Amino acid sequence: MNVRELQTPALLVDSAGLEHNLAAMAAALPGERLRPHVKAHKCTALAKRQAAAGHRTFTCATIGEVEGMAAAGLGEDLLLANEVADASRLGRVVADGARVTLAVDSEATIDAAKAGGVTEVLVDVNVGLPRCGCAPDDAGRLADHARHHGLTVRGVMGYEGHVVGLEDRTKRLERTAESMELLVKAHADVGGDLISAGGTGTFDINTWATEIQAGSYALMDTAYGKLGLPFVQALTVLATVISVSPGWAVADCGLKALGMDHGNPTTDAGDVWFCSDEHLTFKPSQPLEVGDRIRVIPAHVDPTVAYHDALYVTDGDEVVEKWPVDLRGW
Amino acid sequence: MNVRELQTPALLVDSAGLEHNLAAMAAALPGERLRPHVKAHKCTALAKRQAAAGHRTFTCATIGEVEGMAAAGLGEDLLLANEVADASRLGRVVADGARVTLAVDSEATIDAAKAGGVTEVLVDVNVGLPRCGCAPDDAGRLADHARHHGLTVRGVMGYEGHVVGLEDRTKRLERTAESMELLVKAHADVGGDLISAGGTGTFDINTWATEIQAGSYALMDTAYGKLGLPFVQALTVLATVISVSPGWAVADCGLKALGMDHGNPTTDAGDVWFCSDEHLTFKPSQPLEVGDRIRVIPAHVDPTVAYHDALYVTDGDEVVEKWPVDLRGW
Repeated sequence: MNVRELQTPALLVDSAGLEHNLAAMAAALPGERLRPHVKAHKCTALAKRQAAAGHRTFTCATIGEVEGMAAAGLGEDLLLANEVADASRLGRVVADGARVTLAVDSEATIDAAKAGGVTEVLVDVNVGLPRCGCAPDDAGRLADHARHHGLTVRGVMGYEGHVVGLEDRTKRLERTAESMELLVKAHADVGGDLISAGGTGTFDINTWATEIQAGSYALMDTAYGKLGLPFVQALTVLATVISVSPGWAVADCGLKALGMDHGNPTTDAGDVWFCSDEHLTFKPSQPLEVGDRIRVIPAHVDPTVAYHDALYVTDGDEVVEKWPVDLRGW
Repeated sequence: MNVRELQTPALLVDSAGLEHNLAAMAAALPGERLRPHVKAHKCTALAKRQAAAGHRTFTCATIGEVEGMAAAGLGEDLLLANEVADASRLGRVVADGARVTLAVDSEATIDAAKAGGVTEVLVDVNVGLPRCGCAPDDAGRLADHARHHGLTVRGVMGYEGHVVGLEDRTKRLERTAESMELLVKAHADVGGDLISAGGTGTFDINTWATEIQAGSYALMDTAYGKLGLPFVQALTVLATVISVSPGWAVADCGLKALGMDHGNPTTDAGDVWFCSDEHLTFKPSQPLEVGDRIRVIPAHVDPTVAYHDALYVTDGDEVVEKWPVDLRGW
């Protein structure tokens, strides 16, 4: 099928770009040095490509992602890098034979893990981003609490989310060092094999972590595109021009097809003015006609993919595979 | 079922609030004076409530919404208030017995309507928002072109989208008058019964239109909440507190559960700091514990609903109905 036959808006994944990104990351962080984060693509078919590149351990953000990965046969070592108040669905995944490790940052979340039937945890440590994670000094106490309740503590995690997007590499390095100093110290109190941290923006900077939780590298977006990383833009949103006025044009790709928290998308077709629910208004860089197709690059990959039900893998203008975005929802 | 049993994040619709909004709008704009826009809720069960309130004509933003409304038995008079380059799917909906009117703003979109099997159109006129719509002076010529090709021209539409959100009512009134002066003049050139325009922010201001295309009024959001309209906030996102730190707390409701183009959501539980993919970080207004539930109010209803697969209708803390968000996608 040619991309012209697709209903728009549609998510396109450039096959060569994806393969480049997977290969570049697998060379830099082979095997278990990378624990790919599936939240960026929410697609078990893409996760299988990551597994084929040598990564057998995965990071998830939601219970639904853990369930979907296990159901797809990718449940060898799944980390839910997020706290939950009710782990019963995760306990069922464990009972069905998958390995699930759950992030915990409080006695309440440890008790929830135990009550739900999860047997392995990581102590989530706040390394500077005001989100989840215990205070570094509390990590040892929480590990003791977990072990006291019969749980296996595999180590620590701590996400330097306030650092991964900094455009200045020197600043990223300095701030990562500060964050990881906290995490390494907490790890000394906690024990276990794993120091899990990092993201696409710090994949080659964070040398303190034993494993990196990067996800965006596979598809990329304009925010990470500013960082000079060795990954190419593999994801675009295909849109159709539906209206042409003197001075601007409109394509059928709007707020419901794009994550907007990092701002407007970009397009080679011209300068983006604004997005509405189902529209992208832009100033074309060359004359366009109704029916013309344009490629739009999202500012933030994760919430963009979450709006779509499929990724269309392309080789030039040929659609070679359709991958369901099967890890949506919670 | 009690709301405590719901997996979070979950969209809740307060039944009394919804009924209030539907009744208030039906009193102000009875029957065909309102052509409810389904893009805000994407839910045929909710559209059936609007039909029960007396509205039998509907506005859609996507081909998929038209197909879904027709399949749900709500195809008496559907307007796709948007241009398409390929109307063949709409032609099949017409062939199956629904009435579909399509917005056109160029010879190309008129030709697409004709080629696809759509027989009725509205001429979409630009009334000040740089998006779709022909120049007002072109409307008569396009109507002639459509009639020459055997299409029925039902009138004009023109969306004052640059006006509906203005917080100052006097300004909204002035700018609506300017926009509608253009539309009424175009209508004189085009003919037909319909002058279709307006939105929730101008529902009682736009007296030039024969029908108003409001949609957000049913559920509401914080952006429209600033306008002093007679509609109450009926939609909330239910979230669970998963982490509590000194100074802030985190709930499991993030960028993939909220449309973010109008900025951060709000919550009675405290001051919102920021959203991440699956997290809302906020400063609680009173002590919270892991497992506590909070209600989050989205800044923009349309792209929020589009992330979810169901609306849970509630009476207090009791879930009385589950409505699929069945008009998602394109």
